[in-house]
Amino acid sequence: MNSKIKKDGRKRIFFDNASTTRIDDHVFKEMEPYFRENYGNPSSLHDFGESAKIAVEQAREKVADMIGTSAEEIYFTSCGTESNNLALWGLARALKGKGSHIISSVIEHYSILNPLKEMKKNGWNISLVPVDKHGLVNPGDIENEITGSTVLISIMHANNEIGTIQKIKEISLIAKKHNIIFHSDGVATAGIIPVNVRELGIDAYSFSAQQLHGPKGVAALFIKRGARIKPIFLGGTQEKGRRAGTENVPGIIGFGKACELAKIRMNENMKYVSKLRDSLIKRLEDKITDIQLNGHPTSRLPGNVHISFKYIEGESILLMLNIEGIAAASGSSCASQALKSSHVLNAIGLSPTMAQGSILFSLGKYNTDLEINRLLEVLPPIVQRLREMSPIYRK
Amino acid sequence: MNSKIKKDGRKRIFFDNASTTRIDDHVFKEMEPYFRENYGNPSSLHDFGESAKIAVEQAREKVADMIGTSAEEIYFTSCGTESNNLALWGLARALKGKGSHIISSVIEHYSILNPLKEMKKNGWNISLVPVDKHGLVNPGDIENEITGSTVLISIMHANNEIGTIQKIKEISLIAKKHNIIFHSDGVATAGIIPVNVRELGIDAYSFSAQQLHGPKGVAALFIKRGARIKPIFLGGTQEKGRRAGTENVPGIIGFGKACELAKIRMNENMKYVSKLRDSLIKRLEDKITDIQLNGHPTSRLPGNVHISFKYIEGESILLMLNIEGIAAASGSSCASQALKSSHVLNAIGLSPTMAQGSILFSLGKYNTDLEINRLLEVLPPIVQRLREMSPIYRK
Repeated sequence: MNSKIKKDGRKRIFFDNASTTRIDDHVFKEMEPYFRENYGNPSSLHDFGESAKIAVEQAREKVADMIGTSAEEIYFTSCGTESNNLALWGLARALKGKGSHIISSVIEHYSILNPLKEMKKNGWNISLVPVDKHGLVNPGDIENEITGSTVLISIMHANNEIGTIQKIKEISLIAKKHNIIFHSDGVATAGIIPVNVRELGIDAYSFSAQQLHGPKGVAALFIKRGARIKPIFLGGTQEKGRRAGTENVPGIIGFGKACELAKIRMNENMKYVSKLRDSLIKRLEDKITDIQLNGHPTSRLPGNVHISFKYIEGESILLMLNIEGIAAASGSSCASQALKSSHVLNAIGLSPTMAQGSILFSLGKYNTDLEINRLLEVLPPIVQRLREMSPIYRK
Repeated sequence: MNSKIKKDGRKRIFFDNASTTRIDDHVFKEMEPYFRENYGNPSSLHDFGESAKIAVEQAREKVADMIGTSAEEIYFTSCGTESNNLALWGLARALKGKGSHIISSVIEHYSILNPLKEMKKNGWNISLVPVDKHGLVNPGDIENEITGSTVLISIMHANNEIGTIQKIKEISLIAKKHNIIFHSDGVATAGIIPVNVRELGIDAYSFSAQQLHGPKGVAALFIKRGARIKPIFLGGTQEKGRRAGTENVPGIIGFGKACELAKIRMNENMKYVSKLRDSLIKRLEDKITDIQLNGHPTSRLPGNVHISFKYIEGESILLMLNIEGIAAASGSSCASQALKSSHVLNAIGLSPTMAQGSILFSLGKYNTDLEINRLLEVLPPIVQRLREMSPIYRK
């Protein structure tokens, strides 16, 4: 089965770039020799090992370069979830002597919220700041939570569901003022909008290849030089002892290439994708009544179109769009199979019925105007049909 | 740079299959569409997600089948090190109420020994049983260490350096008798020799794709149905909540194919590789004086040729072999860059100079008689030259 092509020969449309992205052909091409020819283990003392090691270090430079830092501050992991877990457990445990209070927000990804929940059971004191109706954290709220025991602040760069971009620079200044380590989950932002961790004043930053047209199974954690962190995995001496385990060489090479391309094409992609986004939002608002755009009106990811459709269920829209060959999402893919209502939508004050009626169209560089046209052909009748079946819809 | 071909056009020879293996072309072919076409996130509610999910579950069945178990007992991870760490931390933490004593051996891989060291600092009581001169654990030694507080036994299936295969069935019977969970690190064995975790009576088993002609960046932990385990990573609901993080879909597909092929060709490969091994050992012993085969004479991995060369350093042999286009190893690749002397060789009672003079040739299904011939052409003069330079060599 090729999920890109439907049985009727029509190309499937992928509006779920927040959950993962199609790998760039140049990225795949760069990885291929590291599967087939240069298959050495970078720790080995021979040319197979050496060529893998050199390529891994070149990739590390590209990854570092994309976020404005140096290679020695990049640690490769297996996924965004691992990077976030390593950041929280690793930084907090290294700081344990100093205090036991961590500040984060209510709209973080589960790979932040769930470790924090577990840490709470283990004696850590966790404060989660709220967000406003646009999903924005008020930096002042963070400052108000700081105590003498606060050792870590973790605020995501942009939200993966509603696309709101946080005031990271303001938050980092507060962290710096109080001498507190600042981590940011950048899975939704790295490679999508310009990120310079030095300028932003971030001490640790998680990001993942699969969100920026790189392969699944590889991600990174930036850790500022000098910051102490305890590893989660212990074993060999890979990644300077901070992440044991044989490196996913082809994955890392692909990640490097994806970061290189993302950096080169950043402005072009942003401009292109934002234009698609704005056009989609406008045309949806023109064509379908009783809908609402969630997230921030301006401080928003270029590809994010998160819409609540009154009176109907997002899941039903998804299923009917899928029949038409269009892929979208209802909230975070990590939770979507559990059919839980989104903590993010709760946090911005959406009613449970509006939350249930939400769809995320996340656009990327491979989407086109023609695909948007197609969506606007099929979506209005779907919404209309579902509303006619809905007991709460009053015409 | 293509590490398979030297500058002089000669094909490089890879005798380092214990550190990693060349990916099988059929495996790569199976993975490719999951990079390029079926790039969905398995958690997504649309056909891109669905096709990835189905393929992941099919791969899980193949992986399970190779070790004689069922798919629901297989959890995918990112590497053997992660599987070992998850087994130790996860099983032990889930069993914490029952006791705090763990039994393992002195010759385990660093991804077992280093977590155990850390656990010791955290209040766990760790016993490491010794091995005999062939690297064999005496199951009676394990039984003698058992106390009322013992909750976990972890003994590797075969040693990655000297290739000794342990008496796993006898150990599992002891564990069962005392109602203790038994984990085995099978990274060196799975896909190489027949493994049936049910028949062997193992409760948890770690193994990795890159050791069996699959891709880097993916591994698995078998956990017997009903065994309790606490996850290391928290986040989404992937892998039934035991390993959060988006699945490395192409990696998992490749792992599945590699396991399927390994199972089909197990006997054929074993016979072929053992024959190469025995021929290499015999011819080395014929051609070079003052050498010693380490590990067990019969209970030994099919591809393992671990030799100590008296009077000279293994590292020097390695470097000179590499110049000739032949890749081998001095001990575990995870430690080789640190140039530490091997804890395994210490444990079998090798003197430090004999340990320093050791080389591991690990053979695999892609090696040939012609490659063995080439090694036997170049190695004796290298050894001779190094010995002539050695101050401790007496002619």
